[in-house]
Amino acid sequence: MAAPDKKAIGARAFLYPMPTTLVGANVGGRPNYLAVAFCGIVQAKPAMISVALGRNHHTNAGIRENGTFSVNIPSRHMVEVTDYCGIVSGKKVDKSGLFETFYGKLETAPMIRECPVNMECKLVKTLDFGSTNEVFIGEIIESYAEEKYLCNGTPDIEKVVPILFSMYDNNYWEIGRHLGRAWCVGKKFNGNGNPENGYMGKSDSETLNK
Amino acid sequence: MAAPDKKAIGARAFLYPMPTTLVGANVGGRPNYLAVAFCGIVQAKPAMISVALGRNHHTNAGIRENGTFSVNIPSRHMVEVTDYCGIVSGKKVDKSGLFETFYGKLETAPMIRECPVNMECKLVKTLDFGSTNEVFIGEIIESYAEEKYLCNGTPDIEKVVPILFSMYDNNYWEIGRHLGRAWCVGKKFNGNGNPENGYMGKSDSETLNK
Repeated sequence: MAAPDKKAIGARAFLYPMPTTLVGANVGGRPNYLAVAFCGIVQAKPAMISVALGRNHHTNAGIRENGTFSVNIPSRHMVEVTDYCGIVSGKKVDKSGLFETFYGKLETAPMIRECPVNMECKLVKTLDFGSTNEVFIGEIIESYAEEKYLCNGTPDIEKVVPILFSMYDNNYWEIGRHLGRAWCVGKKFNGNGNPENGYMGKSDSETLNK
Repeated sequence: MAAPDKKAIGARAFLYPMPTTLVGANVGGRPNYLAVAFCGIVQAKPAMISVALGRNHHTNAGIRENGTFSVNIPSRHMVEVTDYCGIVSGKKVDKSGLFETFYGKLETAPMIRECPVNMECKLVKTLDFGSTNEVFIGEIIESYAEEKYLCNGTPDIEKVVPILFSMYDNNYWEIGRHLGRAWCVGKKFNGNGNPENGYMGKSDSETLNK
């Protein structure tokens, strides 16, 4: 079946939204931090995360050197310093003084105290498809947050206020309104596959505020 | 350096935010769709994306069967049907009629016409760390969108209105306010590593509206 209203827009990475993170690694014994949006969870338990870095970044050498790295979640008020970490290379500028660095169980994965959430990772696999990026997959050994960001022991996204990223247009966004509970709002859906069942055909504006 | 205000909160996947996608695959010749938040870009060019699915999902068999899958970006008004696709298994319920399916170049990667953005993927690698998830990495062969979601040939996230996901508390969110341009707002940052430089120490409320 074709879809005449759909237009081919190129083989590009249109994932919406992406998270904006700061990936940390010690390079030659000095903490370095890079803004990274190419990341995703690859396993729930043991928890693993992938970060895909342009192959020429300074950070990559540090991840290889120590077999450790961190993924830090900056908050919206950190948008300037986060973007700055994506603009300047650790090869030219010492970024170790931009933040207060702390270490956890792995001892060599530098983490950013100012970021509401930190994950320290042990490298378990490196993927190289021979092109623009190197992919580092890490097992999350421990995570950290200040008490003020938590609700029942888990970070509260409304307190964290993370930064979203949209690629190609290159914009940062914050999170917006609550849409519903997962594994819950779907129970309202009458999934009988019938276009008259109340879902299909309704436009966003018709259904948004119901 | 320790950080006495930081609390260890467990080796969990605290990535904020995650995107909410619908992963499509033909299983036994019939389209099936699964709600997936464990995904991320792994390479810019050629564009590649990873999706990490719980190993018992129906979709996995279809990805292996055809070596193809799709990643579809639902819009906020689709939150109920998206969540429904994460609640009911294709092993028990036929989800092929929930959406209008279309196919692209690969011919076996079913895509959802109602989703503003679709990426059709050719499987290039499968990772299995032996635990909860199987990881499928696909090269994005083509992407699709309707003209009404585009701005200069690229999807406009404010028109797409994707669904964000926060794990453990299990909530869906929409995007919020624009925070700035990437590779741009960081130029305002005076990154001299000095805590008096206007970034560090300022609370969110102090800096948000400046």
